[in-house]
Amino acid sequence: MRILPKSKSKKSKQPTKSILDRSVGQKPGSLTISAEALAPRLFLMSFNEQMHEAREFTDYEALLQEFKQTPEARHWIDVRGYGSVALLEQIMKDFHIHPLQMEDVINDYQRPKLEEDHNRLFIVSRMVQFTPDHKIDDDQLSIFTGPNYVITFQSDYEDCLEPLRDRIKAGKGAIRKKSAIYLAYAIMDVVLDHYFPAMAQLGEYAEELEDCLFLKPSKQLLSQILDLKREVVKIRRIVWPERDKISEILRMDEQLIPQDLKIYFKDIYDHAVQLMDLVDNYKETTSSLTDLYLSNVSNRMNEVMKVLTIISTIFIPLSFIVGLYGMNFSRENPKGGINPLNMPELYQPYGYVTLLGVMTVIVSGMVYYFYRKGWLTNQ
Amino acid sequence: MRILPKSKSKKSKQPTKSILDRSVGQKPGSLTISAEALAPRLFLMSFNEQMHEAREFTDYEALLQEFKQTPEARHWIDVRGYGSVALLEQIMKDFHIHPLQMEDVINDYQRPKLEEDHNRLFIVSRMVQFTPDHKIDDDQLSIFTGPNYVITFQSDYEDCLEPLRDRIKAGKGAIRKKSAIYLAYAIMDVVLDHYFPAMAQLGEYAEELEDCLFLKPSKQLLSQILDLKREVVKIRRIVWPERDKISEILRMDEQLIPQDLKIYFKDIYDHAVQLMDLVDNYKETTSSLTDLYLSNVSNRMNEVMKVLTIISTIFIPLSFIVGLYGMNFSRENPKGGINPLNMPELYQPYGYVTLLGVMTVIVSGMVYYFYRKGWLTNQ
Amino acid sequence: MRILPKSKSKKSKQPTKSILDRSVGQKPGSLTISAEALAPRLFLMSFNEQMHEAREFTDYEALLQEFKQTPEARHWIDVRGYGSVALLEQIMKDFHIHPLQMEDVINDYQRPKLEEDHNRLFIVSRMVQFTPDHKIDDDQLSIFTGPNYVITFQSDYEDCLEPLRDRIKAGKGAIRKKSAIYLAYAIMDVVLDHYFPAMAQLGEYAEELEDCLFLKPSKQLLSQILDLKREVVKIRRIVWPERDKISEILRMDEQLIPQDLKIYFKDIYDHAVQLMDLVDNYKETTSSLTDLYLSNVSNRMNEVMKVLTIISTIFIPLSFIVGLYGMNFSRENPKGGINPLNMPELYQPYGYVTLLGVMTVIVSGMVYYFYRKGWLTNQ
Amino acid sequence: MRILPKSKSKKSKQPTKSILDRSVGQKPGSLTISAEALAPRLFLMSFNEQMHEAREFTDYEALLQEFKQTPEARHWIDVRGYGSVALLEQIMKDFHIHPLQMEDVINDYQRPKLEEDHNRLFIVSRMVQFTPDHKIDDDQLSIFTGPNYVITFQSDYEDCLEPLRDRIKAGKGAIRKKSAIYLAYAIMDVVLDHYFPAMAQLGEYAEELEDCLFLKPSKQLLSQILDLKREVVKIRRIVWPERDKISEILRMDEQLIPQDLKIYFKDIYDHAVQLMDLVDNYKETTSSLTDLYLSNVSNRMNEVMKVLTIISTIFIPLSFIVGLYGMNFSRENPKGGINPLNMPELYQPYGYVTLLGVMTVIVSGMVYYFYRKGWLTNQ
Amino acid sequence: MRILPKSKSKKSKQPTKSILDRSVGQKPGSLTISAEALAPRLFLMSFNEQMHEAREFTDYEALLQEFKQTPEARHWIDVRGYGSVALLEQIMKDFHIHPLQMEDVINDYQRPKLEEDHNRLFIVSRMVQFTPDHKIDDDQLSIFTGPNYVITFQSDYEDCLEPLRDRIKAGKGAIRKKSAIYLAYAIMDVVLDHYFPAMAQLGEYAEELEDCLFLKPSKQLLSQILDLKREVVKIRRIVWPERDKISEILRMDEQLIPQDLKIYFKDIYDHAVQLMDLVDNYKETTSSLTDLYLSNVSNRMNEVMKVLTIISTIFIPLSFIVGLYGMNFSRENPKGGINPLNMPELYQPYGYVTLLGVMTVIVSGMVYYFYRKGWLTNQ
Repeated sequence: MRILPKSKSKKSKQPTKSILDRSVGQKPGSLTISAEALAPRLFLMSFNEQMHEAREFTDYEALLQEFKQTPEARHWIDVRGYGSVALLEQIMKDFHIHPLQMEDVINDYQRPKLEEDHNRLFIVSRMVQFTPDHKIDDDQLSIFTGPNYVITFQSDYEDCLEPLRDRIKAGKGAIRKKSAIYLAYAIMDVVLDHYFPAMAQLGEYAEELEDCLFLKPSKQLLSQILDLKREVVKIRRIVWPERDKISEILRMDEQLIPQDLKIYFKDIYDHAVQLMDLVDNYKETTSSLTDLYLSNVSNRMNEVMKVLTIISTIFIPLSFIVGLYGMNFSRENPKGGINPLNMPELYQPYGYVTLLGVMTVIVSGMVYYFYRKGWLTNQ
Repeated sequence: MRILPKSKSKKSKQPTKSILDRSVGQKPGSLTISAEALAPRLFLMSFNEQMHEAREFTDYEALLQEFKQTPEARHWIDVRGYGSVALLEQIMKDFHIHPLQMEDVINDYQRPKLEEDHNRLFIVSRMVQFTPDHKIDDDQLSIFTGPNYVITFQSDYEDCLEPLRDRIKAGKGAIRKKSAIYLAYAIMDVVLDHYFPAMAQLGEYAEELEDCLFLKPSKQLLSQILDLKREVVKIRRIVWPERDKISEILRMDEQLIPQDLKIYFKDIYDHAVQLMDLVDNYKETTSSLTDLYLSNVSNRMNEVMKVLTIISTIFIPLSFIVGLYGMNFSRENPKGGINPLNMPELYQPYGYVTLLGVMTVIVSGMVYYFYRKGWLTNQ
Repeated sequence: MRILPKSKSKKSKQPTKSILDRSVGQKPGSLTISAEALAPRLFLMSFNEQMHEAREFTDYEALLQEFKQTPEARHWIDVRGYGSVALLEQIMKDFHIHPLQMEDVINDYQRPKLEEDHNRLFIVSRMVQFTPDHKIDDDQLSIFTGPNYVITFQSDYEDCLEPLRDRIKAGKGAIRKKSAIYLAYAIMDVVLDHYFPAMAQLGEYAEELEDCLFLKPSKQLLSQILDLKREVVKIRRIVWPERDKISEILRMDEQLIPQDLKIYFKDIYDHAVQLMDLVDNYKETTSSLTDLYLSNVSNRMNEVMKVLTIISTIFIPLSFIVGLYGMNFSRENPKGGINPLNMPELYQPYGYVTLLGVMTVIVSGMVYYFYRKGWLTNQ
Repeated sequence: MRILPKSKSKKSKQPTKSILDRSVGQKPGSLTISAEALAPRLFLMSFNEQMHEAREFTDYEALLQEFKQTPEARHWIDVRGYGSVALLEQIMKDFHIHPLQMEDVINDYQRPKLEEDHNRLFIVSRMVQFTPDHKIDDDQLSIFTGPNYVITFQSDYEDCLEPLRDRIKAGKGAIRKKSAIYLAYAIMDVVLDHYFPAMAQLGEYAEELEDCLFLKPSKQLLSQILDLKREVVKIRRIVWPERDKISEILRMDEQLIPQDLKIYFKDIYDHAVQLMDLVDNYKETTSSLTDLYLSNVSNRMNEVMKVLTIISTIFIPLSFIVGLYGMNFSRENPKGGINPLNMPELYQPYGYVTLLGVMTVIVSGMVYYFYRKGWLTNQ
Repeated sequence: MRILPKSKSKKSKQPTKSILDRSVGQKPGSLTISAEALAPRLFLMSFNEQMHEAREFTDYEALLQEFKQTPEARHWIDVRGYGSVALLEQIMKDFHIHPLQMEDVINDYQRPKLEEDHNRLFIVSRMVQFTPDHKIDDDQLSIFTGPNYVITFQSDYEDCLEPLRDRIKAGKGAIRKKSAIYLAYAIMDVVLDHYFPAMAQLGEYAEELEDCLFLKPSKQLLSQILDLKREVVKIRRIVWPERDKISEILRMDEQLIPQDLKIYFKDIYDHAVQLMDLVDNYKETTSSLTDLYLSNVSNRMNEVMKVLTIISTIFIPLSFIVGLYGMNFSRENPKGGINPLNMPELYQPYGYVTLLGVMTVIVSGMVYYFYRKGWLTNQ
């Protein structure tokens, strides 16, 4: 019954809220974290062709030391939760992250984008999920690349990167042999791969709505269809810059993205384009649903009209006839004698029976007429 | 009830008015101020890393002298109200402002734009506000930058820059250390930040309208929805060039915008793009509202039809039946004897009771039929 | 009642006519003037910083001589009416105008455009006007620039350039000091300034239509709204190339348009962009009007339906009841005795009064039901 | 009644047919002519400033010899009908035409296009005509240019180039002095000029349809309007590439299109742009027609509803009243005595007359109500 | 009745399914073939100007040996079915195919695309077919080019390339003389040629639907029209990148695509553009169909309303009249005497006959009124 998301579905509302609530006139580049932010958890995964180590750190200094001890390995520093300004500022300082970029990280509502600075990439991706209340829920994943490390930031403890971590652990494939940029690619690939099941669920929900449309069209249904349309538009607004972002990577020079990695980014670019196709498909579908709904309303009104018309058309003439013979024209002339022309039918022995017969014929004729017009069969 | 803004809401009408009223054939670059222009008030804020001074001047010459005495500081000359041609021409002469640009300043209806001239910027921004009568009210803020100063012009005494002035006073952050261009950036940032609460209010109003749509749809509502749509279109026309303006700054060469400032402008560029997304969202929403309204009208008509059809379908056959037994077919044959076939039902002892029973059965059957069709439950 | 302009409004039809009537297969660049063309009138205005002279010539040779005598002045040769092929060909020869360009001049239906040839400009502008029959009437103004002169051609004797002529006479501002290109700019500026009052009138007419929509919606109204829409589309087709034309001038190299003049053309470029905004606004408005009209038609049908439904729903059951007691079930059994169950109500002393009371209660209940549904209040 | 063209109008269907019927998997560049192709007729027109000669040849060899004998003249070889593969292959060989281009020539459904090859142009134009059954009929004209010749191919014996041939015969204007490219230009100019009368006829037909819409809207009319829309869309698809083609010519280098010819192509470019404007205009018009039609349907339904509502609202209450006094409440109490409260009105001397008066008042009141609502006047 | 394809039409659903089912987080470039994949069949066709040999191999090694033995010939290796990972990996290794490209091959849902790598092309085309259940069925054909060979992959044993194989066998035309790139071109040409009959069938189906629309519009029909629309949109999404792909080939440098081959690709480019035109045409047509359907629904409702209104308008007044004379106003005054004004009509000798006459006149008048309004003729 809602077009605009209300507070019921808190999660999906939150990002919009935070955009609109941003403190006006606040100093640019200053970090103000919301009261709801989770306490940060720190993970470090170090690996190269020979070794692999992954653990959670409670202490940032310990993590940093571990990171510095093995310069020959690739590292994935994984920060979950933005609850500590001090920690974030420390990371900013140690890894030379620009304050405005860190502000983008914690303002959890950035469009997917890409920034390049001193041969380092800052990538904002969005992880999407189709929630049980039929919304697209999107969380931000911010990625910084360095010569031998990747830092990711996310607001929740859960994410969709577990399969990738397992793959690194297993050591299969190229991932442990390649550079940090390849790790960033692998993360983006996993994130993008998660769009497809979300789209599949959205598609199933659209099918459900379509079934409802034929079985039991109701007032709420249009609202649900329009809600779905909005979700499709929303995911479209996420996928577009996602594609642009990757296309920007493809145009970067070789120093930043080595030629042999380009083909991998070309691959996820193709995936993003396929996503666009899918999303456009669903947009078309939801438009069709609206059309179908409106035509259904028209059809139902048509049906109502037909019932009314059939009933009226059959009974109104009959009512006239019985009214006719309910008239009190007098056979007896008060001035004496009789009026033989005043309703002589009433006095015939078979008058009533004949009339019933005539009315039966009229009804049959009309029913036949409606049958021929097809009003009885496919109303 | 209005699509086009009428004189009721004077404020929001004014800009359009002035565009359309511009004196035809007037010499380009000539300053003609409207009779309603406020008397100018002059403010000067001088600051650098060490010091900060802010005061209002009643005399322009005094201001100019103060300005010239401290060439090592940054200055923000703040002119509010365009009521004096003499003053404006004096400023034009002293700060080498082109007559056409000054004309743009006082013609309070420019699109956001950017002009570059001899390494100086002329920036037109629009400060927006969501008024209580649900309009977007936008005022112009014109900004000129110089080597060590920024001049701003605005038509009203009030503005949305107070938080920035407080920040300069407090001396926190980078603002007192950086150049005049950074001050211009900070002003644009504050102005843009004010769009978000205006959008939030607009969004709440849209939610209100949606609630009305479900509770008490009325003729006025569509007008209000179309009004809202127009406001959204209007703000879209402001935000588009705002974004273009900033993107133009991003493409300027390093002499004008030093490389280390670019990242700040990139940041407000991202904000402008987010604004576009929000505005497009609201555009989608208002379109959905129109759809919902029209479908509501259809549904209401459907409901009206159903009531009519139910009542007619139940009573018209019954009326026929009672009409039938109101006929005057005569049992007595005037020619003598009786007509035993003329409505013998009328003379049965239980005739009337039986008929009432039959009619009850008919009504029940029809009610059941309508119940099965779902016309009774979710009408 | 017309979408397509008919011969009633001859003026506004004419250009389209001439486009479609062009002699097929005619030699390109040949001058064939229509029979309705006015006899040409010739005006020469010569001026520089010191002097100013303006008069009408009946003889072209005299004008030419005057023109040649004062090479140090700027000249504005002003030809009104295309009635003489000989004269036009003479001008073509004397001022080296290409035959195809002269053909464009007299074919009074060119889109605004710009051609550059040997450092000379050929500019086609359109002067618009909002006629009393709510049409946009547009006349062509063709401008040729030369080193020290500007030649303008127009088909009517009246135009919108009087204010500019007065300004030259008065000698105020820069116009008498600057080059011929500046004069061309001034002409274009005046022409463009005239769009704004036309747009204002169009806007007022749209407001009028909107008022009508609420007061007395009629069949003609939609036609008028669609007519207005077409006028808006038409002016949009004129303003678009107008803007492109000026943007082309802005991109021309300095030899043709000196740098210090560019800012003036930038100014009218801004005006053209504002015009586009206004036109797009009106396009939106007229679309809203169509929506409102259609929703009004729906609402009126809804209202009609409600009246029918209220009347039917109230009286059909009552009619059934009175029909019921109009039945002729007989209290007397022809076989002897009485049928006490046959309509005993009819014989009660208070039967009739009770029935009237029952019917009053039914009516009240229904009225209350309709009141609760809101059908009585905001129909 | 048809949206899709059926076989009735064979001509206009043909091109689409041939597109869809093309032999799948056929060797590219092979010439397969349809059985319906006309036997080729050959024309040669040779001319220069001094001389002019035009005749039909039955023998290709004779034509070729004639062509070779006068290398100093310009030649226009004009082939009408594609009925002989041998001839076409001979021409291909003699004039070095690429097989794929020749295939394009005989596949009579190419979009307007331009190919450049070894300083020679291959131009495909489409000649349009508005047929009496309100279709746009388009035939292909293929043009090859050479150093001193132009070869044109067309499928029919009739074409729209007669005026040009007459002009060459008459020797007026520049045509006999200029190069072969100018001849190609002249042909394209004539072809394009023929679009305007076709558009004019289409416009008249649109006006006719609009008149019908107001006089006698019918079910067929919408079909006709949608047909017209499709024709407009079709001509739009022809004019767009026509314009692109000419714009491509304008960008060609001077070796191919000498600078002094460019202005001529610029002229037909302007014509093509005007055509686009016209076509867009008609597109808008046909959309308005659809809107008007649908609103007309709504209005008619409204009118029907009003008639029903007026009749019902007037007579249903009256019917109730007369039913009321048709009830049989008995004045005589079977138990003895009378029931003075049972319908005493029936026994008043002026009861009937009074009732007639009351009903007259009710009817008058209702008629006044409908008059005030405007249902009687502008239904 | 379905917008979204359900499992009924398994074939056409499959690609979408596989897109959405892709294993999330799977290692990029890893080959996982679906359980339904067919066992691969291997074909080799070797030919040059002198010779031609074509056979199926059951053993890949044998094929490879045969391939290597005749380096002077062109080879077409044709793999149908993806059922063996081992084989695919062997081919990858032998022909230096990138793992990501091989992944694209077996993921049977790629958009048409083109990749260039070390002077070799990887082309993805889609072969379309119009299935009996009115769907567009599209299968992927992947093409790799090498110096003297072309490898194609497809998932089914059947394809649309038979005509090309016959042409190679027959040795007609250029195909046996030209390079491997020409073979790739010939394959793409045949694939594209197959779009046209599919479009023709789609067009016929659209015609059928249109006929149904006029003969027997039903609820299912709109669903079918919307389904068709979706198929048109789908084929549009395939044809667009198909065109882009070929246009990319046209822009490739001469080393890759020799100049003399460009004209062939230009030719299929033209075909692709024509396809776009056709598809856009059908898009327009299906939109018209929706409009027609909706207007048909309106017209039918109009017709229903008219029947109701005619019946009601004729009989309601008559019913009133007969009700009038069914009233029981008493001629006899219970207080004695008679009431001569109470319904004297009832006692006239010709009262009944006169009334019948009056009613006949009323009916005739109304029928004439409806006839004049045109409600009887073209309802």
